[in-house]
Amino acid sequence: MKKNHQYFMRMAINQAKIGKKLGYPPIGAIIVNKNKIISQAYNQKDQLKDATAHAEIIAIRKAGKLLGPNLKKCTLYVTLKPCLMCLTACYWAHIEKIYYGAGREAGKKYFETKKELESIILSDLNLRKIKIKGGVLKNECLKLYR
Amino acid sequence: MKKNHQYFMRMAINQAKIGKKLGYPPIGAIIVNKNKIISQAYNQKDQLKDATAHAEIIAIRKAGKLLGPNLKKCTLYVTLKPCLMCLTACYWAHIEKIYYGAGREAGKKYFETKKELESIILSDLNLRKIKIKGGVLKNECLKLYR
Repeated sequence: MKKNHQYFMRMAINQAKIGKKLGYPPIGAIIVNKNKIISQAYNQKDQLKDATAHAEIIAIRKAGKLLGPNLKKCTLYVTLKPCLMCLTACYWAHIEKIYYGAGREAGKKYFETKKELESIILSDLNLRKIKIKGGVLKNECLKLYR
Repeated sequence: MKKNHQYFMRMAINQAKIGKKLGYPPIGAIIVNKNKIISQAYNQKDQLKDATAHAEIIAIRKAGKLLGPNLKKCTLYVTLKPCLMCLTACYWAHIEKIYYGAGREAGKKYFETKKELESIILSDLNLRKIKIKGGVLKNECLKLYR
């Protein structure tokens, strides 16, 4: 079978289906390096009792075990447009390309464009009333960099 | 000793120091629930070969083992203003309050305000030339939600 975007996305979908069967959010992700799948994952937030255990994050963690934390030249395939956490995780992991399947029509928590993504996440943060405050023991924290 | 913001931030700083001693980025985080520290962590990106292993993410994971993925009424103390990944992770984890020490003067990758945070992360994403494309097997991905 030819390994094209559709091929890899199917593998991600397979992961999503595994998750769905187990009663988890139907989101799957795979990471590809040199045309080979190096990690596969589905959302395991509830299974692992870990709010960060989105499919993409787990896939990044698994890939890191093989290649180290820097996943240059790797491509992520994910069934749903990544949230801002996962997008930023891809940034830190140096993921080169992201291909996703469904956009935010699948759920209002997901985003269509970078501009929308910014405004949506920020308004969501506001809705949740996360409070952010800085400067507590600022100098001692700054000293850590000396 | 009185358990105030300074007290908890010192605990976070202690974590950062452990990391620093081991040669890792000097960033520490703790999570507090009902005035008790329920998790402590430092950045372990290189140790765990995991680009997502920021102090905040590890602290959220550890806290989840105790309380489940929903960390309502928990407070995060972190020595450095959280990046967008960690901020979004806090959002997903329902973290109620975040207190941080140093702002982005400690490193240009960190942000000062929500508005700056948006623009900085997006320009960084652009600098890294992450490519994002949607619609690959869109319908099959959408089907997962039926």
